[in-house]
Amino acid sequence: MTPPTKRPRPRIDDVAAAAGVSRGTVSRVLNGGHWVSPEALAAVNAAIKKTGYRVNPHARSLATNRANSVAFLLTESHDKLFEDPNFAVLMRGAADALAVHDIPLVLILAGTEDEQRRANDFITAGHVDGVLLVSAHANRTDIISNIIDARVPAISCGVPLGFERKMGYVAADDYTGARDMLEHLRSLGRTKIATITGPQDTSGGIRRLSAYRDDQGAQFQEQLVGAGDYSRESGAAAMAQLLAAAPDLDAVFAANDLMALGAMDHLAAAGIRVPEDVAVGGFDDIAPSASAHPPLTTIRQPFERISAEMVRLLLGAIKGELPSAVTLPTELVVRDSA
Amino acid sequence: MTPPTKRPRPRIDDVAAAAGVSRGTVSRVLNGGHWVSPEALAAVNAAIKKTGYRVNPHARSLATNRANSVAFLLTESHDKLFEDPNFAVLMRGAADALAVHDIPLVLILAGTEDEQRRANDFITAGHVDGVLLVSAHANRTDIISNIIDARVPAISCGVPLGFERKMGYVAADDYTGARDMLEHLRSLGRTKIATITGPQDTSGGIRRLSAYRDDQGAQFQEQLVGAGDYSRESGAAAMAQLLAAAPDLDAVFAANDLMALGAMDHLAAAGIRVPEDVAVGGFDDIAPSASAHPPLTTIRQPFERISAEMVRLLLGAIKGELPSAVTLPTELVVRDSA
Repeated sequence: MTPPTKRPRPRIDDVAAAAGVSRGTVSRVLNGGHWVSPEALAAVNAAIKKTGYRVNPHARSLATNRANSVAFLLTESHDKLFEDPNFAVLMRGAADALAVHDIPLVLILAGTEDEQRRANDFITAGHVDGVLLVSAHANRTDIISNIIDARVPAISCGVPLGFERKMGYVAADDYTGARDMLEHLRSLGRTKIATITGPQDTSGGIRRLSAYRDDQGAQFQEQLVGAGDYSRESGAAAMAQLLAAAPDLDAVFAANDLMALGAMDHLAAAGIRVPEDVAVGGFDDIAPSASAHPPLTTIRQPFERISAEMVRLLLGAIKGELPSAVTLPTELVVRDSA
Repeated sequence: MTPPTKRPRPRIDDVAAAAGVSRGTVSRVLNGGHWVSPEALAAVNAAIKKTGYRVNPHARSLATNRANSVAFLLTESHDKLFEDPNFAVLMRGAADALAVHDIPLVLILAGTEDEQRRANDFITAGHVDGVLLVSAHANRTDIISNIIDARVPAISCGVPLGFERKMGYVAADDYTGARDMLEHLRSLGRTKIATITGPQDTSGGIRRLSAYRDDQGAQFQEQLVGAGDYSRESGAAAMAQLLAAAPDLDAVFAANDLMALGAMDHLAAAGIRVPEDVAVGGFDDIAPSASAHPPLTTIRQPFERISAEMVRLLLGAIKGELPSAVTLPTELVVRDSA
């Protein structure tokens, strides 16, 4: 094998020698090409190519103080990235929005405390200009406060609970979306509506449950609330528990589609018909929902707009704009499950 | 909103003032704490915490020349990452192996030419110490040569065709694995064995086809070779084409499991029984293969060992070791499809 590290890194003097110009001319070319004749410019560019010269990256970053990259920081496990399709959609949308600005997106998965500490070190060391912070859980208080303390521009997907005034964010209108679903279930004549909640340390989980409480009002019953963690399995388990506590429930609103699909898994296994016996409504509109049996009625989150807005706010924050908060509307998508 | 960017970044002088020591003492603490009294050390550390001071990251990188991070560079589209489970397994294995060394892994997806150019700029700018290069296609010649030219340590997953002597790599023994599968099909009494190939610009695709040619010897027939691109859909399409050309084929070896599953999709739709009419063998042993109908006989790739070996070689390359090549054995997993 040929050791690629043995050749010394070409220096600016090597470029000057190869181009037959002064060191200063090379430097002017590297800094934008002002005050350089077209002939010298061509010679220097040819010499840069020939020698394989590259600007010392750290010196360049020191001068411009820009890494020209953005991190998509997902404070979730590897498994979650591949299990919950929302993350893929958000990541793709962010990459596409950044591509317009010729900025690469680097993904950092940090589900554990150690991973979050390493991610924090990487981010605050200046390897990225800003952070798109995405999580379905609030296991990220330390990383948020570290990012804020280090003054790294960052935009949160969803409300950064406890840091609303210190970090900009983009969120769907969870409360109104959930109210829309509950009103739809009620319009179908359903009177005993249960809910399967998301994690109560996330803004989405909190607000969708809050909408349910407000919708139920004086009729609210604790036994109609099942706790989930946004996974399909947790939806199935919560559905089983709800049916045991209230066998006569006639509708269920799950705080995300994966849990709604899990609830339908359990209902099908128990021989309970959807929507005839129990109407099921979800939240998100992930791809599998449209082809579920029956196709799932849900609240569509505007994921593409969310990622595009996050990128817009982040590029603004990198330029020094004050962080702002954007709330985007959701949309009721009526299919067959409710 | 409180603008976090308005406060000036604390400087070394602020730390010295807060600690009541000289600038030189702070500097000695930052550089390892030699020649500093325990009292001064405690005062400086308290002042660092109080002021929120951080070493200028670019200056630190300039001194140590280390980013303390590694990139997982996948020269594939976003869709492919979520479609082909091999990538998730490799990424997770690499992250786990690096975690032992307290090194974070950053994922860069670069399927298009523009994305590869941006990835190349990011990588060669020193934001990572090395690269784990993963791809199912050879749309990466430019990025390989750029990484080599920039002398960034890198290890390829699979043979880096055309750069075997310049970049270390870890590969499964594709040729022997494919021969094992073909011998297994033959041992079942199958005499007319077709193959569905992977992309012929990848070492795995080339070597698995080469094993098929050698296995067939003088009996080789072009009409028994269907071309796929490792996707499930391409496996179904190739199976249809093979059956049209040779309706009496009694076995098929697909160069990966996704294509084998696609082939079984087509066979089931065409009412052809597996394995009674056509035996099907795959390559990879991805998770869905064990629960396929029927469960798929395949060649298991040692993905965990591949990612662990890639990390071991990369950390060695970062320390200046010569790049080496590791070939790992595969294993025949007999289930019901063949």
